[in-house]
Amino acid sequence: MSDEEIAVPDHADTSLDELGAQPLVRVRLDVSYDGTDFSGWALQPGRRTVQGVLRDALGTVLRVSPVTLTVAGRTDAGVHATGQVAHLDVSATAWGAVRERFVHRLAGVLPPDVRIWAATEVPAAFDARFGALWRRYVYRICDAEGGVDPLRRRQVLLWPRQLDEAAMAAAAATLVGLHDFVAFCRRREGASTIRTLEAFDVARAGDEVICTVQADAFCRSMVRSLVGALVAVGEGRRGIEWPAGLLGHDKRSDDVGVVPARGLTLVEVRYPPDAELGARAVLSRAKRS
Amino acid sequence: MSDEEIAVPDHADTSLDELGAQPLVRVRLDVSYDGTDFSGWALQPGRRTVQGVLRDALGTVLRVSPVTLTVAGRTDAGVHATGQVAHLDVSATAWGAVRERFVHRLAGVLPPDVRIWAATEVPAAFDARFGALWRRYVYRICDAEGGVDPLRRRQVLLWPRQLDEAAMAAAAATLVGLHDFVAFCRRREGASTIRTLEAFDVARAGDEVICTVQADAFCRSMVRSLVGALVAVGEGRRGIEWPAGLLGHDKRSDDVGVVPARGLTLVEVRYPPDAELGARAVLSRAKRS
Repeated sequence: MSDEEIAVPDHADTSLDELGAQPLVRVRLDVSYDGTDFSGWALQPGRRTVQGVLRDALGTVLRVSPVTLTVAGRTDAGVHATGQVAHLDVSATAWGAVRERFVHRLAGVLPPDVRIWAATEVPAAFDARFGALWRRYVYRICDAEGGVDPLRRRQVLLWPRQLDEAAMAAAAATLVGLHDFVAFCRRREGASTIRTLEAFDVARAGDEVICTVQADAFCRSMVRSLVGALVAVGEGRRGIEWPAGLLGHDKRSDDVGVVPARGLTLVEVRYPPDAELGARAVLSRAKRS
Repeated sequence: MSDEEIAVPDHADTSLDELGAQPLVRVRLDVSYDGTDFSGWALQPGRRTVQGVLRDALGTVLRVSPVTLTVAGRTDAGVHATGQVAHLDVSATAWGAVRERFVHRLAGVLPPDVRIWAATEVPAAFDARFGALWRRYVYRICDAEGGVDPLRRRQVLLWPRQLDEAAMAAAAATLVGLHDFVAFCRRREGASTIRTLEAFDVARAGDEVICTVQADAFCRSMVRSLVGALVAVGEGRRGIEWPAGLLGHDKRSDDVGVVPARGLTLVEVRYPPDAELGARAVLSRAKRS
């Protein structure tokens, strides 16, 4: 799950610009990963993380170390991404030496469960984390009697009971808007749990129920809690009005289950046009404090 | 790869009806699998095969052994299926005891890389192998500079050079029709290599080139050889007219590469309406001899 308020800063490493007076180039990376064998995005000592694997690969190809990555969504262990975005600053010299075949060379160094699809020079005002207009996640649940399609089993959760996707969709619609989502969040000291849920759609494709959720930002475990609430509705354990009733709570609800990471994928992060980048980052930082 | 002429019969096991005088029910199974960790469909001593795993699971749930399975496409090691079809005969007593929750119970016994989606009683004239009107396979190739989408890496082949899908599509179209495909087949004694290629389409979806091929039946390694020929065209190593020129050959062509199993999936097998089942099976058996 994305968490834009986690205490450990993304900029914990020494920044390249502190090492010398070289001009820097900001590079946007578009990243996909199968989260199954990662302990999430964020660096953790002794654990295999997406950030750690990318940092090593970037260090090898760029021949600089350490590499500092700023990311749009700090996904939890087991969560996947097809549209993750990160940025890094690299000296113009190092970048100039590799830019032509950068994506191809990274592909040769990265393990098969993480890919950098694109690497693009962006203005210095681009910020993968604070510049994002919104994040979109998809959660996939299969309720087939025979189980999950074997070729999709790493990214789809098997649910042992039939789900009523129409009831889930109706409940999802009641959550859209600006609310305090504290009932669906792991609370953090001093961090706001007020978010604008811009879209929350539920649709069935064969045996798969696909929940798509878009917001300016998400609190920790928020998507998986929202989907957990919908599943209770889809099973018939709760009524359609139940999830919206939780919006009035002033703390995390013990009644809301958190569905497993396996079904969750960060599919898209949207940024404003270049001319508006700086203004957006200032606004995002202000809203979170 | 499908091979309807392999020497080892599907009916090598003792048939259930030989064990007693009980009435038999014929059951059609719709099967999916991730072929990555299987040594193909067909039973092989000491190897993990789809047929072997299914046979054990069916034996457990039906409480009979051995279970004889007849299959539409005897896929090779590493080839996947989303639309494989098999049939078995089971005593009316054993079937009656489990039919209600059969698919669910199988799901609890099968490993996650193979699923039985549906189990349907069919007329005794239904034959998964000889009754099929056609088989359809899909071969997926990614030619992205950054590599294959991590969540699709088990079913998509990475190609290191850019492919011209329009040239591939044009070449594919020249192969459609009734031909002797010996240049694209591993020859077998006494087996025909004459096949009707009913469709061969190539389309690009983002970084993936998707080859879809449909025929009454396929010889061993035929789909992977056909795609191998198209890839040579897509890279520009061969002209659009080259694959069709091979149709005149009287033996397997050494110039045709066989692409790896990873990218290949059996997606559908089509059968005639129940009333025409018997006639179709007689026709298929006659054509193959």
